[in-house]
Amino acid sequence: MTQLEFAKNNKITSLMKQIAQEEKLKPEFILKGLREGTIVIPHNNKHVLKKPCAIGKGLRTKINANIGISTEKCKISYELKKLRAVIDCGADTVMDLSVGANLGKILRKIIKHSSIPVGTVPIYEIAINAKRKTGNILSFNTDDILGTLELQAKEGVDFFTIHAGVTRKTLRALEGKKRILGIVSRGGAILAGWIKRHKKENPLYEHFDRVLDIAYKYDVTLSLGDGLRPGSVWDATDKAQLSELNTLGELALRAKKRNVQVMIEGPGHVPLDQIKKNIDLEKKICRQAPFYVLGPLVTDIAAGYDHISASIGGALAASYGADFLCYVTPSEHLRLPSIENVKEGVIASRIAAHAADLVKKVKSAWEWDKAMSEARKKRDWKSQIKLSIDPERAQHYRNSSRPHLSDVCTMCGEYCSIKLMEECL
Amino acid sequence: MTQLEFAKNNKITSLMKQIAQEEKLKPEFILKGLREGTIVIPHNNKHVLKKPCAIGKGLRTKINANIGISTEKCKISYELKKLRAVIDCGADTVMDLSVGANLGKILRKIIKHSSIPVGTVPIYEIAINAKRKTGNILSFNTDDILGTLELQAKEGVDFFTIHAGVTRKTLRALEGKKRILGIVSRGGAILAGWIKRHKKENPLYEHFDRVLDIAYKYDVTLSLGDGLRPGSVWDATDKAQLSELNTLGELALRAKKRNVQVMIEGPGHVPLDQIKKNIDLEKKICRQAPFYVLGPLVTDIAAGYDHISASIGGALAASYGADFLCYVTPSEHLRLPSIENVKEGVIASRIAAHAADLVKKVKSAWEWDKAMSEARKKRDWKSQIKLSIDPERAQHYRNSSRPHLSDVCTMCGEYCSIKLMEECL
Repeated sequence: MTQLEFAKNNKITSLMKQIAQEEKLKPEFILKGLREGTIVIPHNNKHVLKKPCAIGKGLRTKINANIGISTEKCKISYELKKLRAVIDCGADTVMDLSVGANLGKILRKIIKHSSIPVGTVPIYEIAINAKRKTGNILSFNTDDILGTLELQAKEGVDFFTIHAGVTRKTLRALEGKKRILGIVSRGGAILAGWIKRHKKENPLYEHFDRVLDIAYKYDVTLSLGDGLRPGSVWDATDKAQLSELNTLGELALRAKKRNVQVMIEGPGHVPLDQIKKNIDLEKKICRQAPFYVLGPLVTDIAAGYDHISASIGGALAASYGADFLCYVTPSEHLRLPSIENVKEGVIASRIAAHAADLVKKVKSAWEWDKAMSEARKKRDWKSQIKLSIDPERAQHYRNSSRPHLSDVCTMCGEYCSIKLMEECL
Repeated sequence: MTQLEFAKNNKITSLMKQIAQEEKLKPEFILKGLREGTIVIPHNNKHVLKKPCAIGKGLRTKINANIGISTEKCKISYELKKLRAVIDCGADTVMDLSVGANLGKILRKIIKHSSIPVGTVPIYEIAINAKRKTGNILSFNTDDILGTLELQAKEGVDFFTIHAGVTRKTLRALEGKKRILGIVSRGGAILAGWIKRHKKENPLYEHFDRVLDIAYKYDVTLSLGDGLRPGSVWDATDKAQLSELNTLGELALRAKKRNVQVMIEGPGHVPLDQIKKNIDLEKKICRQAPFYVLGPLVTDIAAGYDHISASIGGALAASYGADFLCYVTPSEHLRLPSIENVKEGVIASRIAAHAADLVKKVKSAWEWDKAMSEARKKRDWKSQIKLSIDPERAQHYRNSSRPHLSDVCTMCGEYCSIKLMEECL
């Protein structure tokens, strides 16, 4: 049985208990959220996870870090170092988005070494296998798709991004409007290409029930991908994006009926004042299914600093109800990220998630800020550093600029406002 | 005559024309904004400025960078390097917030070398002079204050932060509530200490007309400081903060009547969902005077990454109508920033301002994102790098990870979605 099925049967599992303890909530709350489809626990029943997590309404906002090789950079050992780095920095889940040779090998290694849930976009492996066998990435059929899904599920993948919303119908909506950037999702582009080439419906859509069978068998959570997400603020919230979202809403309902846990992926590049609308629409159309947003980036011009653009959008999105933030690194749009970049991406995303958790009234979030403010008041530097989101970085800054007066910092020196107030009053 | 006085007399000055050209607006728009007090042009009439700017409604969001020595770090040459760095990175104004020896000397050098408007918090020099002369920072009187204001105005300072809202009345509001962090503004702390020590009213408040006389004479724009701003999200939007804001509203009205340009400073540490309220209150209470926000930081726990916390808050604040963002560097709360840190602070703040300018429908902002998206579509890497907010950083990332296929990047390699779409369709 899947966690959703247990919940429907009113059975609290040990996994629900573990999650409840971690979130400082009652197990009944987790069960209710699972049953109503507002919470998912991405956890393949073949996978032993040290640090599982739940994603959804009433919980701490979670963050995902993407790693994986590309056809241009393919050092597995380096990606495993990234895995360790993102876990150490506090990512809640990790996605292996490898595209290139040895895909199966790297995925197995990541699953083996990951203490947190692992997600994939299986269409990548399907396309790469097709290319290897036939020279063409689009030479795959329904059996190839289902075979790879089954294989990855058996390996222990906890959640799949499935671009089942890229259909003949939603692609027509795309043709109707002049987007600047067309399709910017790799999975979306592959499936759009397949539909055009074969003049057939997207097999992930047409055979969605068979996808659900596999997901059910291993309790793989489905993350319904937004293959038509905007890649420019100019393309945001357009007809194609909304047409796909409507399709995802229907598919989410089918998944839940089949006892398969499901969440929804969202944009992308979105101007600040369209973020609320995007969250509200997803929550309405997809009946409060957890929303997993990719950024969103609030401008297109921040290449080199897209982690900042994403943290602005992510904080706002989560404060409006997004449940799960996909990190963006400073390398986005420019190169495969370095270890330093993935670390920066995780921290920026955690800051966004935490700022939103204050709005969501997550008690532990408020307690953290209180402890920090109290340490500041006391000018207790040891505690301030320990309570910083990245104690190593905070310690480095402090060490690099030691004041003569040990109770202040070199910013204000003896004119520290807190010290002044203490002395004046 | 001040620019405000010219505007009231319906006279378009060459400075207004220059600003209008820069903003791609009509000079009449600038004049109207000045007259109504929704726009200021910080520009001392003794100062020759290569790059003046206007701040306010209908204009591009501006950003300020703070530099200056402290009693712990006092290398003037290093601060001048920071000045060059923040100007090169695109700061619109700079504040010299030095506290330490040789204050007059560093201020003169900064004014001499700055192509952008320079602001100060004169109470720092007043307190430091008092300390040097008497050993106590609070041993100054009204004449000392006015003398320093006149001196700094004569040197060419373009805008003064004046903490005239820290009064006996507003301090009583502070006593009424248990704040975690009390007063976190250096100027606010000095004036609160002075009021307590001397059992008298804040001279900046009591003799505000004399402050206005000096500001009028040199056309120094007053930035009414928020000495009681919250230093923790727990302290945000409390009675003390709002009591001070009410006082600032009254003082702003007096300044405008006296033909002195005026803007208002705002918090500070503010949870995401209180930002709109803060902007709306300022705009209402201060009759649409330009709002200069210090961050705001949306959480207290991001030490080491406070530029990100501030860019989240700044983007949201400006999208709701804040006009001027004070940058925050990654060193905030930990040390005096390095040159690298001030650069990061300016870029993060510019991203926030730009994201908000998209919401404010600033035409040039939308055009910038369009040009970038079009370059992405064409996979025109030269243009993408040129259009990045920090071309040097973008170029560095690209150079450090060159793909074999020259038209993609190492993130996706041949699986670049844009390339795939082109090949598939």
